[in-house]
Order: sequence, then structure tokens, then C-alpha cells
Amino acid sequence: MHLVTIDDIRSAAARIRGDVLRTPLIPAAWAGPLWLKPENLQAIGAFKVRGAFNAIARLDPDVRARGVVAYSSGNHAQAVAYAAARYGIAAHIVMPEETPRVKVDATRSHGAQVVLCGAGQREAVAADVVERTGGVLVPPFDHPDIIAGQGTAGLEIAEDLPDVEAVFVPVSGGGLASGIGTAIKALCPGARVYGVEPELAGDTAEGLRNGRRANWSIEDRNRTIADGLRSQPSDLTFAHLQRVLDDVITVSEDEIRGAVRDLALRAHLVSEPSGAVALAGYRRAGPAGRAVAVVSGGNIETALLRDILAG
Amino acid sequence: MHLVTIDDIRSAAARIRGDVLRTPLIPAAWAGPLWLKPENLQAIGAFKVRGAFNAIARLDPDVRARGVVAYSSGNHAQAVAYAAARYGIAAHIVMPEETPRVKVDATRSHGAQVVLCGAGQREAVAADVVERTGGVLVPPFDHPDIIAGQGTAGLEIAEDLPDVEAVFVPVSGGGLASGIGTAIKALCPGARVYGVEPELAGDTAEGLRNGRRANWSIEDRNRTIADGLRSQPSDLTFAHLQRVLDDVITVSEDEIRGAVRDLALRAHLVSEPSGAVALAGYRRAGPAGRAVAVVSGGNIETALLRDILAG
Repeated sequence: MHLVTIDDIRSAAARIRGDVLRTPLIPAAWAGPLWLKPENLQAIGAFKVRGAFNAIARLDPDVRARGVVAYSSGNHAQAVAYAAARYGIAAHIVMPEETPRVKVDATRSHGAQVVLCGAGQREAVAADVVERTGGVLVPPFDHPDIIAGQGTAGLEIAEDLPDVEAVFVPVSGGGLASGIGTAIKALCPGARVYGVEPELAGDTAEGLRNGRRANWSIEDRNRTIADGLRSQPSDLTFAHLQRVLDDVITVSEDEIRGAVRDLALRAHLVSEPSGAVALAGYRRAGPAGRAVAVVSGGNIETALLRDILAG
Repeated sequence: MHLVTIDDIRSAAARIRGDVLRTPLIPAAWAGPLWLKPENLQAIGAFKVRGAFNAIARLDPDVRARGVVAYSSGNHAQAVAYAAARYGIAAHIVMPEETPRVKVDATRSHGAQVVLCGAGQREAVAADVVERTGGVLVPPFDHPDIIAGQGTAGLEIAEDLPDVEAVFVPVSGGGLASGIGTAIKALCPGARVYGVEPELAGDTAEGLRNGRRANWSIEDRNRTIADGLRSQPSDLTFAHLQRVLDDVITVSEDEIRGAVRDLALRAHLVSEPSGAVALAGYRRAGPAGRAVAVVSGGNIETALLRDILAG
């Protein structure tokens, strides 16, 4: 199995420059010696554009012209739809029926065709669409090009804060944590890299503890408010996570809500629950030195944001 | 009267580097060929740190050691308190009693002493405090060092988007618009610079139309939800505004609320009403080419943010 290297990530960074926002590190002294990496400020409100642009840019032009297909609970969907529109190619996006409305609408707004499906049926339905349209599947995390693309956020962290001591990254399918972890371990070998998961979708924490992937039911994983963190690593991302994560921290639903609230009121950043878990994990971990928490996305339903702000 | 020059602004930029976040331009394609300058991401949630750090850095060390005094409806207060704490000097801040609680608490959290006063009494009370403490007054806008400090945001806009065609900036006391306008006119002479005001505090629009400062009662100006835009220009800032603004656009309270809502839900930025007027002005102006709207601050009361999000 080929694991992504820092050279892959550097190549991805060169490839997607101009399509993706280079987010700054924002000091968050109110929370400690902490900096936030605000990926919620990306065009579609999440880091997912990094991997999507890298994967689509890497396709052979003849192949790319047939269009792309993706399945996603939301942000990857928007990212592929957005990148496809920038490349002027068709996009079919398979989304579970329970996906927040704001994410379905946003995906359609980029000109993609959305195919709704039952929970757990995404991969199968996407395979059907690939067969029917001839398009290329852009997977949400299980591909070296996706991992390398997400890793560009880690490259930027290392450039902006070379003496960083700890990096906190949400874990779901594991593409972001694999990529950022690979970049940080290569460029800041003294820094620790922590994955953060909701307790209610803590399969990766369990899996890394036991040395093999854990399998939680989709019903269990759907319990968390963090709707972007309900996937599980693949063999490929799990192998990366085993190599680059120092630990996985799990956080409660209340801790996640508190982090969303504080990001809005103290950092002036709107985050979705999945985007706030890294801050929650930083707090749960206790003193970690000069740290970065990745705010991975901001696509939250308005009613939920209002509810969380009510405290 | 000495008007601030681009050299003053360049010197200020060198002086405050390291103390102030260099904010990126964030594409806001959902609103047009528009970029946002998110000054709400500064440490105290507003651009005011730029002027405060520049003014305090410029003081003679012996003078600075006596501490600083400021009067402000909020964000300048926090900025001076924050900068004073970084310099290890005392800060007394005079604030009107109707100041949003979130801003009073934030100012105290930086270790400053807050002196509350009646509406319209700020300048007089601040003068008393200066006499009593021997501290130096750091005015909110009526000083070349403040204007040059705020102008550093304009320098960054010109660096990041040299072919910018229009820049939208909120106007109240006029320090930010004076500084940004000076930088843009020097570096991007083809770009238009628009001040934006609430209709309910439209003294500068009226004043520039008539060629002399207008004076609206504080009761009138207090009607706007944009509590940071209730001041009026001084002779110094008015002279700058006459030279650097192409026009002043006024916006309704509903337009301001709509801009706060869209910044939260589409750009994932929490803004205060004063911080959202530039986006509202951009929309009111109609097509303006490649434009920048300055999101000047994010310190909004939680209840008001919830109310605006309810639509």
C-alpha cells in the first residue's frame, strides 16, 4: 500500500494554488496558546475543496471530460460540485436522505445533479451512477489524491507556525487527519498530532487502540450532532492514521456544542459541529503547548446554530 | 492640517507587524466579484487594534509608562485595553452606559479599568481621567497615528488585489475610511472608494454632499442598530474623507440585518451590524467590478445575532 508522502502534498499544493484559499492561522488567546485554521472560510465552507481540486486536476483531460461522481453527507459533495463547475464538467452527487437541507441546496446551487439515497446505500448508488454516466468517482477520502489534497492544510500550518507543538484534527473517514498528519510529521517532527472524534462515533479511537479498524453501525454513528463525522476510515486512511496520529481524543456532544458557541462568539467564526470538534478536543486534552485546531467546516443549519447560541 | 500619507501607512504597517493579524481577502462569489476583508478575526474582534497599536507604539517610552486613556462605544476600548496589556501599561477606558454588555465585559477582561458615563459625555469624562491619572489619551479616530494604523488594512488590500476596482468601508468617526482610502488612492489610483453609513446615522453622506461637516444629534444617531457607527468625523478625518472617498452610500436597517445574516450563513463570519454595512453598501451600489468589502468587526450581542438569524 502506497502511503502519501510530503512530496505528494507539495505537488498537490502547487496544483490547487489559485483554486483554494490559503487560510491564515488565527490566534485564539482566549483558549490558550492556540491558533485556529479556519477551513470554514473556503468557498464551499469546508476543507474538502483541497482534495476535490487535487483529484480532479490529476485526471487525464479526456477522462475528466466525462464528468465526475461523488457520494457524501455534504461537504465533499459541495466541494466536488464546485470544483467540477470550475472545470466546466458535469457532476452527479449521491447524498443520503437525512443530509441537512442547507448542504443539499448548496450542492445543487453549483449546478450538480443530486441523487438522494437511503442511509448506508451511498457507495452502491454511486457505483450505479458511474456505470450509467461514464463519469469518474471522486471518493470522499479513500484515495491518495484526496489525502494529499487535504494535507496541503498541514503544509500551511507548518509554514506559518514551524514551532507548533500539537495539532488537533477531526477524524471521520480520515482523509484530513491522514494528510495533515503526514505533513506535520514530515516538517515538524517534534509536534504531536491528535485526531478528535465525537464519543458517539468513536470508531477510530477504538480501532487505533486495538490495532485494527473498528466497525460501528451507521445507526450508532448517526447519533452524533456532528453529521460530517459519521464515516469510518478505509484501509488506506487507517494505515496513515496508525502512522501519523499520536492519539485520538473523543469529546461529548455538549463539548462540541460549547465549541461551536465559543467559535462564533469569541473567534467570530461560524462552524458546524464537525468543524468545532478539534477545539473541543484541544480543551479535553489539557495543556499541549503551542497548538493548532483545524476548524474544518462551517455549514450548519440556521436553526441548530440559533439553538446552540441560546446556550 | 497634515493629512496622512502612504509613507505614514507603510511605517505603521512595519510598526504593528507581529501585533496585528494580517487578514486575508476571502472570495465571496455568492455576492458577486467580491472579496471580504475579515477584520472581525482580529484578536479583539475588530480593526481597531491597528490604530491602537500604532498610536501606543509611537509614544515616547517615558510617556507611555504613565498609561493610556480612551473613550469608545466599544471596539476601540477593547483595542486600547488589549494593546496596553501587551505593552504592560495601565489603561482607563470611558464607555457610555448603553454600550453592549459584551463589549464592556471584553474590555475589562483585558485588565483595563472601565469608567461608565452618560451618552455624549465621553470626551469630557475622558479628559478628567487624563488629568487624574497622567495617562495619554488615545483618541478613537481623530489622530494621524490612528488613521495611519487603520490604513494598514488598505495597504494589505492593495497588495493582495492590485487590480481592485472598488472598496467599500464603513464610516463613523472616519478613521478607517480615511486610512484605507488614503492607501487605495495611492496604490490603486483607478479604484473607487465608497464610505457606507446607516441611513439613520447618515451625517457624513450629508456632510460630503454639502462640503462641510453635518451635525446630527446623538439621539438621532443612536437609532441605528449599528452601534459602532454612531460617531461623526472630526475636522481631520472629514478632510481626509473629502479627498479620498468617491461617494458615501447609506443603507437601511433591514439591509444591515440581511448582511449580518448572509455573512454568518454564507461566509461563515460572525459580524456586528457595523461590521456588515460595507456588504450592504456593496449590494446597494450595484455592479462595481472587482470589489472589496471590509467586515470591520464581529462583537455582536448573542441575542441580537440569534434574532437576525431567525430572519
